[in-house]
Amino acid sequence: MADGPSVQVFFTPAELGGRGVEGKTAVVIDVLRATSCIVEAMANGAAAIFPTESVDDAMALRDSLDLDRTLLCGERKGLRIGGFDLGNSPTEFTPEMITDKQLIMTTTNGTQALVATRRARRTLVASLFNLSAVAQEVANDSEVAVVCAGKEGCFSLDDTVCAGHLVLTIMEQADGDVGLDDGASAAAKLAGSYGPDAQTFAASAAGRALVDAEMASDLEFCAEVDRHDVVPVMHDRAIVLSGD
Amino acid sequence: MADGPSVQVFFTPAELGGRGVEGKTAVVIDVLRATSCIVEAMANGAAAIFPTESVDDAMALRDSLDLDRTLLCGERKGLRIGGFDLGNSPTEFTPEMITDKQLIMTTTNGTQALVATRRARRTLVASLFNLSAVAQEVANDSEVAVVCAGKEGCFSLDDTVCAGHLVLTIMEQADGDVGLDDGASAAAKLAGSYGPDAQTFAASAAGRALVDAEMASDLEFCAEVDRHDVVPVMHDRAIVLSGD
Repeated sequence: MADGPSVQVFFTPAELGGRGVEGKTAVVIDVLRATSCIVEAMANGAAAIFPTESVDDAMALRDSLDLDRTLLCGERKGLRIGGFDLGNSPTEFTPEMITDKQLIMTTTNGTQALVATRRARRTLVASLFNLSAVAQEVANDSEVAVVCAGKEGCFSLDDTVCAGHLVLTIMEQADGDVGLDDGASAAAKLAGSYGPDAQTFAASAAGRALVDAEMASDLEFCAEVDRHDVVPVMHDRAIVLSGD
Repeated sequence: MADGPSVQVFFTPAELGGRGVEGKTAVVIDVLRATSCIVEAMANGAAAIFPTESVDDAMALRDSLDLDRTLLCGERKGLRIGGFDLGNSPTEFTPEMITDKQLIMTTTNGTQALVATRRARRTLVASLFNLSAVAQEVANDSEVAVVCAGKEGCFSLDDTVCAGHLVLTIMEQADGDVGLDDGASAAAKLAGSYGPDAQTFAASAAGRALVDAEMASDLEFCAEVDRHDVVPVMHDRAIVLSGD
């Protein structure tokens, strides 16, 4: 039997300092809600997404792009940033709103994680929306580093469970044995206890924060497994669709 | 019912940057093997242990202490450091060897984690050897931050499972509801799947490294739950026994 990919799971971007992503395929997850937004937006026809670390960087980048085709989106403390066109709920990223648009996105955790993987061979974007598509995309890679955005530098249960279900899906789809590091083993084990569903999200700190901010409906929305068959991939600093 | 402690689990010292340990009781775990050594040594009569980050710091500190009463111990890449008296196997820390001695200890992960908690209200040292004693010690604290040393900046399964069993023991012993953050919930769930035993250690990267280095017997030794009824506590830069 051929060897399948070796899969590592990092629970915070800071863990990349230990072993790095150089030469690996990175898969970034911030399921509540940045990477759910990115998958939704790319599936619904966005031309490209530019993640930035700061609001200032987002503003500066907009000034260099075609204003008619560009939207600013993102959150701080879960809420839409003042003066921005969209917040960080995937329900906002409808075809009517974003088809052919370039999106500049800055969020508290997710876009930071994307930026942290710049040295990877390539960086893919995952959420529950595209687990099977991402698993298929990495099936022939040798080293896959799944990077959870976490919450303000700390472990987050929502991202971890999403990562665990991705690991299980990779194991189902891979043509050969899949190697798991300690993090991947733990994430897969947790995915056996926590379903890919709104109930799991509600048990996480990120989920509770959304409920408190009266955005509980996003928990149900973000829990739809394989809603889309797309894999967003980051080239240089722009996210586009794999295969485009 | 009174409120029991609120328990957080951090899987790497770097996660402390997110929420910090100020005002909390920190509990440091590097079960393979630094904190197992510390618990064993303090139970067997060591006078004090001084963790240092580097070999140079260890050497410099020895020159300032009573040479007849001081031993250098620790490892790099799992092996005893050249010129040191002891390595990093708890089997070396016998009463004959260490009673009334001051130990200066430097290891790859564990002593770094201890140093990272310097801002905590107090720092306790835990391994499987003293789970019940530590749980009892923190039963009346309001905030407990369990800090896993991890492995070179990354998540480690052995420390996590030890942390999870500590969380379960705290929940059993606390006089009231115990609050769990995402990390503590995940660790407790994993402890339901992975026993506090040598089999779990053998499934971890740290455990496999010890097997490869022909120190497999340390896996069995470090897996003895509640071998001792002591709680080492770090005051300033010295670890002594709680209550001394």
